[in-house]
Amino acid sequence: MNPLFEQMPTSVFERMSLAATEHGAVNLGQGFPDFGWPPEILAQAAEALLHQSNQYPPSRGLPRLREAVADHYRRHQGLALGSDHVVVTSGATEALAAAILALVEPGDEAIIFAPAYDAYAPLVRRAGGVVREVKLAAPGWRIEEQAVEAAVSDRTRVIIVNNPHNPTGRLFGRDELQAIAAVAQRHDLIVITDEVWEHLLLGSEPFVSMAALPGMAERTIKCGSAGKIFSLTGWKIGWLVAPPGLARVLTRAHQYLAFASPPNLQQAVAWGLAEGDAWLAPMRARFARGRDRLAAGLAAAGYAVLPSEATYFCCVDLAASGLAPDDEAFAQAAVEQAGVAVIPLSPFYEEAPERGFVRLCFGKQDATLDAGIAAMTKAR
Amino acid sequence: MNPLFEQMPTSVFERMSLAATEHGAVNLGQGFPDFGWPPEILAQAAEALLHQSNQYPPSRGLPRLREAVADHYRRHQGLALGSDHVVVTSGATEALAAAILALVEPGDEAIIFAPAYDAYAPLVRRAGGVVREVKLAAPGWRIEEQAVEAAVSDRTRVIIVNNPHNPTGRLFGRDELQAIAAVAQRHDLIVITDEVWEHLLLGSEPFVSMAALPGMAERTIKCGSAGKIFSLTGWKIGWLVAPPGLARVLTRAHQYLAFASPPNLQQAVAWGLAEGDAWLAPMRARFARGRDRLAAGLAAAGYAVLPSEATYFCCVDLAASGLAPDDEAFAQAAVEQAGVAVIPLSPFYEEAPERGFVRLCFGKQDATLDAGIAAMTKAR
Ligand SMILES: CSCCC(=O)C(=O)O
Ligand SMILES: CSCCC(=O)C(=O)O
Repeated sequence: MNPLFEQMPTSVFERMSLAATEHGAVNLGQGFPDFGWPPEILAQAAEALLHQSNQYPPSRGLPRLREAVADHYRRHQGLALGSDHVVVTSGATEALAAAILALVEPGDEAIIFAPAYDAYAPLVRRAGGVVREVKLAAPGWRIEEQAVEAAVSDRTRVIIVNNPHNPTGRLFGRDELQAIAAVAQRHDLIVITDEVWEHLLLGSEPFVSMAALPGMAERTIKCGSAGKIFSLTGWKIGWLVAPPGLARVLTRAHQYLAFASPPNLQQAVAWGLAEGDAWLAPMRARFARGRDRLAAGLAAAGYAVLPSEATYFCCVDLAASGLAPDDEAFAQAAVEQAGVAVIPLSPFYEEAPERGFVRLCFGKQDATLDAGIAAMTKAR
Repeated sequence: MNPLFEQMPTSVFERMSLAATEHGAVNLGQGFPDFGWPPEILAQAAEALLHQSNQYPPSRGLPRLREAVADHYRRHQGLALGSDHVVVTSGATEALAAAILALVEPGDEAIIFAPAYDAYAPLVRRAGGVVREVKLAAPGWRIEEQAVEAAVSDRTRVIIVNNPHNPTGRLFGRDELQAIAAVAQRHDLIVITDEVWEHLLLGSEPFVSMAALPGMAERTIKCGSAGKIFSLTGWKIGWLVAPPGLARVLTRAHQYLAFASPPNLQQAVAWGLAEGDAWLAPMRARFARGRDRLAAGLAAAGYAVLPSEATYFCCVDLAASGLAPDDEAFAQAAVEQAGVAVIPLSPFYEEAPERGFVRLCFGKQDATLDAGIAAMTKAR
């Protein structure tokens, strides 16, 4: 048995969702909305399921979807793409797995920013690579060029970035992305950028794709997710966007990880990307309303809530809330005794975790948020 | 870039399907049926899509589906299973990837039987393992204990078996499976058994699961596929079945490869496994009819067709058909000039491939088979 997996814990998202079910708690842990998908896209998926092919689509994805993804990013992010840049995957998790397994060779180093989405480090290690963790200073979580530069060695191969950032809800600014880009270009590194939250913007700052920075298109692998864009996290349709030569290699990794994804869901996502621009602004407004409602309720209950610029998450600073900074103990008691599941941030670190923060998901209907606020009030 | 993927060709299935599309050829290459799914299962999937949750299901799979898989194998194969043995995956490809990445550590050896399904060797190598290939002698393709034994070294960790066997269409007999089991027990090896074709039986011989052999349940990881059982290859719902301790570790690998699979498809598959026993016999009869039609047509055109006991594939022996034994050249000319895509067998070998065989898929409607036979008649 590979000891990596033998000693690996269950993902914190799964663990907290199972605990929520077990204790009948309100689930503000794992990130999934309980509203927000456009009903038309369900109808499209059902229609394709009943009346079109349910056999293997091409491993790289339906041409229609690859074209729709390319077109979407041409329009929204100014990326110069064609369908040759796109590989459809079984969700962003498989996209990350394919990218990391395709790029990282034994001994290669990968830089990640902590707190980091929990899949990155295990995948780097399973690829034989070594994780170099750059810590973002709490609670501002800013990327500093000199910290990135200091993490580079002659074995560094890749920088894994997540913007907008889960779990902090930060939207990194152009200056911070530029800092990463400068290091990547200086040392000839590839950047894997997990941009699944690119449309979950809650303020007026625009999102800048790493691939849109000068000189970065040729060295950037971008991961996207229909589950996040359309609030259908169970659909597991994602994609990789990369220069055609790199995309070809990513396709090789993908063909032996999941091979292909359900064609009816691909059809519906293609339709949604082509037709759905009008949904984006109301979706953002609706999630921003959820953020404001949760943040206000938590503040009223005495919690120090950090700002959230994007994603559907916000974090609570336990110490600043006058509580003991032990996120796991807080989360455990919250789900078992107070009836609300939240996500502790310490599993997002490889070493010396910050223990003073928990994350809550506000992508929920008002009644769910209110029940969560009531339980959080009990939890302190 | 990992050189493994950089130098890797496109999978032969994808390559031949793309060529079929490009040349407007009849596609008897990649294995997918163009009939045979029960319409009720589509209705179940559409119903769940429109009226149930489309958010993340548990990473291990919906409890209902895990129970249905366990129950299915209890009833059909006499396996003593509960839902703790089952991990739902994004198709059998992801099941294989999770199993191989979870089990094989750098330097470990994995025994495979050639011709071997094309995913096994690249996954073993990406895991850092070394492939030991045991050749099945053409055209009988029998497993011999002494050949398996001879492939074992003190670094051997796992034997990867595929029964019924793709691409040959062989259903291995109990004696052959017993031979593998004896070697596995003697050397304390794990067996990964790819049994996706378990219900595609075309004769009267029963299927025996590796996990049903005495002493094997505790060291067997079984891969299954709803896509094959229900003729819905695009759905990409598969599973791993293993002792609970091993299943726990497989879940860890799975959580960072695909995390979860679409809940509506899982619901429909659960329904199909619980309700669908009556479909199995007519399905087999229907595929056997396809085999007989294709084999008769090819024989009439002068081809030597090997027997096919299971799967929806049969092989043609080029030399015995009076043709040059160059499978790639035959396949290339067939798709480009004669208008039919077939699968050469040489990509199913790591070294010293057999070059005298091509595989054809008979899981097609009569008109498609007849068009394929006409094109094959032209191809010689
Ligand atoms: C794949 S489960 C995790 C979902 C998610 O993005 C989150 O909760 O952070
Ligand atoms: C995943 S594509 C290959 C499908 C198949 O099992 C085959 O054609 O052998």
